[in-house]
Amino acid sequence: MQPDYFIERKMRPIGFCHAFAVEIHRVIEHAPLLEGFTIAEITELGGFMPVYEADAGACIIGEGEVGDFMVLIISGAIDVVRLDRFGHSSRIAVVRGGHSLGEMSMIDGEPRFASCIALETTRFAVLSREALTEVIQTRPRLGARILIKLVHILSQRLRNTSMRLVALQESTRS
Amino acid sequence: MQPDYFIERKMRPIGFCHAFAVEIHRVIEHAPLLEGFTIAEITELGGFMPVYEADAGACIIGEGEVGDFMVLIISGAIDVVRLDRFGHSSRIAVVRGGHSLGEMSMIDGEPRFASCIALETTRFAVLSREALTEVIQTRPRLGARILIKLVHILSQRLRNTSMRLVALQESTRS
Repeated sequence: MQPDYFIERKMRPIGFCHAFAVEIHRVIEHAPLLEGFTIAEITELGGFMPVYEADAGACIIGEGEVGDFMVLIISGAIDVVRLDRFGHSSRIAVVRGGHSLGEMSMIDGEPRFASCIALETTRFAVLSREALTEVIQTRPRLGARILIKLVHILSQRLRNTSMRLVALQESTRS
Repeated sequence: MQPDYFIERKMRPIGFCHAFAVEIHRVIEHAPLLEGFTIAEITELGGFMPVYEADAGACIIGEGEVGDFMVLIISGAIDVVRLDRFGHSSRIAVVRGGHSLGEMSMIDGEPRFASCIALETTRFAVLSREALTEVIQTRPRLGARILIKLVHILSQRLRNTSMRLVALQESTRS
């Protein structure tokens, strides 16, 4: 990740995640990535996760871009949209505080599947592939905890997406 | 996982994964779970992964069952099938040596999404949630490597499934 990626997009760096540990802990019941983490663990992890603030309309992630980071929404709301084959923007989801986005490209380095646009003033913490690698190498237990969470999140999302695909396949067949 | 789960289903325990390290290393270019692992690492991991042999027709994983293990196919072929809403069995994929199955339930403990039936004599190594937890606790670096691989596999599968869902949604809309 280029350090100025967010700044070029007019998003404001507002510190590191540990400064927001209490705020994050408050949304944690909706935060699969950090569910069950203590404030101490969030604080430990926090040094690896810079926090930015984006205005409504800011493009945090652009479809098709190469990206190597994921974001954890602390507050605000993000529109997840994708262009259909006619070039029309189609909403996939609206995602709020606690949820994370962008895991797939952070992991596999392939182009972003969808765009993520702030719907209102939104604060989010960034976890880059480089930072995750460093956490795994220097704090293996914390690294393993995050990896287990990522595996959970992806597994749940894969299950939901597979269910939707199967339901749609069946409805188009009948 | 009940230790007799496979034996009750008439599958034969044939040792532990390290006895098959060379065989596994041979299919490894098709094995996303262990890609890049050395024979020494596979051997280290092997003690946590018992290997079974199933005859054609054996049901290794049953749709809707509660399961807490994944399998890595060493040789043979497995039919992945799911019942549609009319009760007809519908093939999702045929999976061969090197590939893994059952990750979702191993991770989240929810019912199996599909059944996995041996199409021919098939050898597979089993990784249970309990064994993975032990690897993570006692060999954190090896544990982190496996978790990273799982994250990769799930991410790729989620990307592919999402692409298929979007393509089908667009074709039904037009």
